[in-house]
Amino acid sequence: MKANHETVEVNGRRYARPSAPVVVVCVDGCEPDYLTQAIRAGVAPWLAHTLEHGTSLIGECVVPSFTNPNNLSIVTGVPPAVHGICGNYFFDAARGEEVMMNDPAYLRAPTLLARFADSGARVAVVTAKDKLRTLLGEGLSGICFSAEKAGEATLENAGIERVPELVGLPVPSVYSADLSEFVFAAGVRLQETRRPDLTYLSTTDYIQHKCAPGALEANAFYAMVDRYLSKLDAMGAVIGLTADHGMSAKTDAAGRPRVLYLQQVLDDALGPGAARVILPITDPYVVHHGALGSFATVYVSPGPLAQARECLQRLPGIECVLERETAAARFELPPDRIGDLVVIGDHLTVLGTRADRHDLSGLTVPLRSHGGLSEQLVPLVFNRRLEGLDPGRRLRNFDVFDLALNHARSA
Amino acid sequence: MKANHETVEVNGRRYARPSAPVVVVCVDGCEPDYLTQAIRAGVAPWLAHTLEHGTSLIGECVVPSFTNPNNLSIVTGVPPAVHGICGNYFFDAARGEEVMMNDPAYLRAPTLLARFADSGARVAVVTAKDKLRTLLGEGLSGICFSAEKAGEATLENAGIERVPELVGLPVPSVYSADLSEFVFAAGVRLQETRRPDLTYLSTTDYIQHKCAPGALEANAFYAMVDRYLSKLDAMGAVIGLTADHGMSAKTDAAGRPRVLYLQQVLDDALGPGAARVILPITDPYVVHHGALGSFATVYVSPGPLAQARECLQRLPGIECVLERETAAARFELPPDRIGDLVVIGDHLTVLGTRADRHDLSGLTVPLRSHGGLSEQLVPLVFNRRLEGLDPGRRLRNFDVFDLALNHARSA
Repeated sequence: MKANHETVEVNGRRYARPSAPVVVVCVDGCEPDYLTQAIRAGVAPWLAHTLEHGTSLIGECVVPSFTNPNNLSIVTGVPPAVHGICGNYFFDAARGEEVMMNDPAYLRAPTLLARFADSGARVAVVTAKDKLRTLLGEGLSGICFSAEKAGEATLENAGIERVPELVGLPVPSVYSADLSEFVFAAGVRLQETRRPDLTYLSTTDYIQHKCAPGALEANAFYAMVDRYLSKLDAMGAVIGLTADHGMSAKTDAAGRPRVLYLQQVLDDALGPGAARVILPITDPYVVHHGALGSFATVYVSPGPLAQARECLQRLPGIECVLERETAAARFELPPDRIGDLVVIGDHLTVLGTRADRHDLSGLTVPLRSHGGLSEQLVPLVFNRRLEGLDPGRRLRNFDVFDLALNHARSA
Repeated sequence: MKANHETVEVNGRRYARPSAPVVVVCVDGCEPDYLTQAIRAGVAPWLAHTLEHGTSLIGECVVPSFTNPNNLSIVTGVPPAVHGICGNYFFDAARGEEVMMNDPAYLRAPTLLARFADSGARVAVVTAKDKLRTLLGEGLSGICFSAEKAGEATLENAGIERVPELVGLPVPSVYSADLSEFVFAAGVRLQETRRPDLTYLSTTDYIQHKCAPGALEANAFYAMVDRYLSKLDAMGAVIGLTADHGMSAKTDAAGRPRVLYLQQVLDDALGPGAARVILPITDPYVVHHGALGSFATVYVSPGPLAQARECLQRLPGIECVLERETAAARFELPPDRIGDLVVIGDHLTVLGTRADRHDLSGLTVPLRSHGGLSEQLVPLVFNRRLEGLDPGRRLRNFDVFDLALNHARSA
């Protein structure tokens, strides 16, 4: 912890105010090997240099290893048990219906971005997809917009206007690598023109769902990341890079998706309607993964609970089945927002509801996805040496602001 | 199970005698994505066709996910608890010393290869490295040689002589892809000249330790595999392909190996000599992985056992620490040949003894290795449809002979 410096306290953690601009980047789906392979291919010279002279660690993300729970953990510094966002989608027991969890009303903790802004810091947030914007921007007096809807940003709704003109790029398609490039380009232009004290950039995993580490398109993506980060570095920013989750092949050797359709299994075992399977990966953008991830939660009444659990546990491809309280304790999840069972697929297996509810026609390449324990390890990379870090500390991706603000050595 | 056909019983399992030549291939370190990516790259046309028209399944290998325990499980059809080989290297408590486990005296069950040969079948075994030859060939009246020492094969020691002349290739270096190519080339020439009823081909993971799935060298390797398998297929062989284990990157994002040196940790915690860490991956060929895998076993006296366990469990990078009986039951291992604790690293972490006992100078590329739970899922691929298979059955790589002999549909 830096001394002689004003701090900001949020959710029980204390953060030093930045002495240089801090840019935290969440590279969606960034399995560490993507960086390793891009460096080996020679297309990421800035990263190669940074990992040599700065800091390269591995941290654990939140399980379910999905985008929203992890982005919210990163900007609150706490697990979903505290901030409440444990998926993109859930069964709202109070309302008795399945709903998206992207309404800020579901957020139970303030973000450190909002608190820093309240304390006078200039804060900017750029996300790829609009689904995250309202959650990340909750309570924030600063700049917050998505690449997807960059054209709709106004001073009133985003703290900034004329974003495409500022960035100098057209508003990209939501299914593209360009969506993430727009985020980085915006980050650089904001740094050039507004010099925010704290910036949070969050990309989309369109490329990672499609390409294995080392593939040409993956390397091209990381070459792009490298170019923009080197510009931020040249402007003196302290950069912390992490990921919301990793990414694994979820196919057999033939490249066919390995899917367990749990609603089908439970309907057959317990009778139709006895159990309700919820896939928290569900969101409006499912073309690249067909709403198939390695984490599901199941609502089932006490009578058939044991039978449901046993029948799921026996399925080849299941990593573990945990009851609500055990899962909530182990993964630090809000028990009132998960089902009676939490089901996790193994590193090659994804979980669906029923075959006829998943449109796999968009899967033009072998499925790669996430959600389980096998996608929990993510990079924690800094362009500075860190100091005062307990070597035995269990690092999380949501320590990234703590590490960047409290432990990064001055340049 | 085929009716009207003589069967051979080995280790409590019954196998139909083959009506066509059966070739089982163990592709060392074949994470399923290697096949997927080679097919996508268009370099494995036979595999692409076979996976479309034959059978593509995923099975679980034996943990520790190392070469010897899995090769022995494949040729005996049973787990190490039965056949006794649970590593390359172990602490022989009876002799009070650490020794290689490649002496057939350590084998506790007959191989199905030997039993088939005894019952009149022509059997041929070709391994890449010589370390496996004596174990796989135990009790076998047939052909058995290694590519590594192909020049030394005689009728007396291998059931065949003049192997390099037969194969038409020079004896390759032990650290090369050529070593595996020699195995396939020998398999094809044996099929052309001797037409064995049962052939077992076992390669080496030199390429898989070095290259990620989809890398040019990896694709070139699988293109080679594809060419030879298509020749075996054209000769009418029933082909079953599996792997001894998968393969994972074991580095941080910078490509630096993530190693926990357990002997060092335990010496610091308990005092020097209180615990003995054994790495069952240890063998004479360690240049490509520095004897670093994700599985270790620890001998420690009852007094400090709980302390040792706790101190290991706390280390970031540890997937689990199990006591002997629990580990032996869960992984079907011989309890008398493992330590008091079994330690498994997570999918990016390998386990060492002390830094000064591992020579990492041979690691010219980012470390990829195996040994843990994250490398347990392997392909089970057949050039035939399978019939009569229970869809809920938990498949193992050591079911490959059962599947090829008892379930493969006639061409």
